Amino acid sequence: MIAIDWGTSSLRAFRLDPQGRVIDARRSDQGVLASSGRFEAVLEDVVQGWDERVVAMAGMVGSRQGWHEVAYVACPAGLDEIAQGMRRIESSVLRDRELWIAPGLSVVHADGVHDVMRGEETQICGLLDRLGPGSHLACLAGTHCKHLRIDDGRIRDFSTAMTGELFQVLSQHSILGRLMQPGPHDTPGFARGLDHAALDGDLIEHLFAVRTHGLFDVLPASALRSFLSGLLIGHELRGLPASAQSVHLIAPPALLEPYTTALTRRGHRVQVHDEQVSARGLYALARQRGLPMA
Amino acid sequence: MIAIDWGTSSLRAFRLDPQGRVIDARRSDQGVLASSGRFEAVLEDVVQGWDERVVAMAGMVGSRQGWHEVAYVACPAGLDEIAQGMRRIESSVLRDRELWIAPGLSVVHADGVHDVMRGEETQICGLLDRLGPGSHLACLAGTHCKHLRIDDGRIRDFSTAMTGELFQVLSQHSILGRLMQPGPHDTPGFARGLDHAALDGDLIEHLFAVRTHGLFDVLPASALRSFLSGLLIGHELRGLPASAQSVHLIAPPALLEPYTTALTRRGHRVQVHDEQVSARGLYALARQRGLPMA
Repeated sequence: MIAIDWGTSSLRAFRLDPQGRVIDARRSDQGVLASSGRFEAVLEDVVQGWDERVVAMAGMVGSRQGWHEVAYVACPAGLDEIAQGMRRIESSVLRDRELWIAPGLSVVHADGVHDVMRGEETQICGLLDRLGPGSHLACLAGTHCKHLRIDDGRIRDFSTAMTGELFQVLSQHSILGRLMQPGPHDTPGFARGLDHAALDGDLIEHLFAVRTHGLFDVLPASALRSFLSGLLIGHELRGLPASAQSVHLIAPPALLEPYTTALTRRGHRVQVHDEQVSARGLYALARQRGLPMA
Repeated sequence: MIAIDWGTSSLRAFRLDPQGRVIDARRSDQGVLASSGRFEAVLEDVVQGWDERVVAMAGMVGSRQGWHEVAYVACPAGLDEIAQGMRRIESSVLRDRELWIAPGLSVVHADGVHDVMRGEETQICGLLDRLGPGSHLACLAGTHCKHLRIDDGRIRDFSTAMTGELFQVLSQHSILGRLMQPGPHDTPGFARGLDHAALDGDLIEHLFAVRTHGLFDVLPASALRSFLSGLLIGHELRGLPASAQSVHLIAPPALLEPYTTALTRRGHRVQVHDEQVSARGLYALARQRGLPMA
């Protein structure tokens, strides 16, 4: 089968053998935004030369702005509920393919507030057979970070932190960005940001320290970006249990070290999983759904 | 004398009689950013036809990016310390004027973090004679909101919340803004944002509710901007004492009702002061410094 993780700004395609092993992988910048109105052509191009029949897709491709909207499945949900929520779509262009889109997940918290994800649930499906029974925490870092609680193989609850997006808009469009000088990740500046997030006070006040640390030369201008990053990630992790439970981390390469550092400093043991878990997850879902794998 | 509140994006000029009463006022969009490199010409234009000798200025005009950098005065500070921090500047263009710039204020919190203001301290100087002895709280709403504690006529402590700027960058540059429809201030949406800010959890998580409230039609798209505003102002006010002390509020017209609502809902009694307090403050500082008023 072919597994496709089709997000807002990029697409990753995996060719899997019948046992679910990745035998080829491709990447494209034709995310959902760039593919709008021409999803079939983009997909045809991406899978060219791969002759597997089943194409299972996950991510924003199933959103209202995607190819075909697939309803969210409500938490708690495991492999079975998510596989049942998959929808088959027809395409006159890709006649010799069998096209499926996985659903996203939704949750309603005790306070009545909704949360949603599309794509991350598939990554967790790729982890479930490694996690085993009991209660587990997972952190999926990125533009919108997801924190999940998984109980006995089912996603029980999750929440979203807009860490990555907040970092981008503040760096690029706020007064804080004006003081920052470009530079590589600055480890002491990042650690200082984490420490700052642990102080009393709200993020909306803490942010101003990026400016005053620059004004008063507390940190060099080249360390302010990393300070902001540490500050935001530190606030994101404030909600984790204080008891040092281990955390399963899935992160893009640039965020792997920062998140590992941040979680470790809070006393968590970090178990890192590679980003190919999304291919594993789509395989697990397709098998659960009984789709042909050859 | 002439009093000038010269901020980043705009300038307000007041002509005062010898008793400190405002007898004329002008406004210009030639803020510090727009005036860079030609401060004398902008000032000459703004005060044309007003023949008072002393021109006292406050705000970002005294910053590194302004006309002439004037060192911050450290808190705690009252009228006397701030007046002593004023600096006279020379101008070959404006020979018949006596030009003064007021300093900003700085503070170092117990945790070693600096905070700064430029301009707001002058507004407080215009309030001091109304406040009297004892301990007072003041909230100055705007792009960077300032919360101050004033003890017996001296500014003891303050902190900055980036509420206005965060609202702007998130509305204009984040995924949250894409769901928002333009519309007038929405009172129920704003109240819902305030309530949301009072829930457990960090701002970095709460923000995502702007999106899910839109996705799940919890709020109409035209109410999401006001929800975000209430969420941010609610987080800003989390740091205020829970005991319902009265708060002195200075806010631009568009923020007067939202802040009054937010403070009242938290149990504070609100005392509103008009924005002309900056002219009163510059007058009080000039008199303290012994400058000629005619």
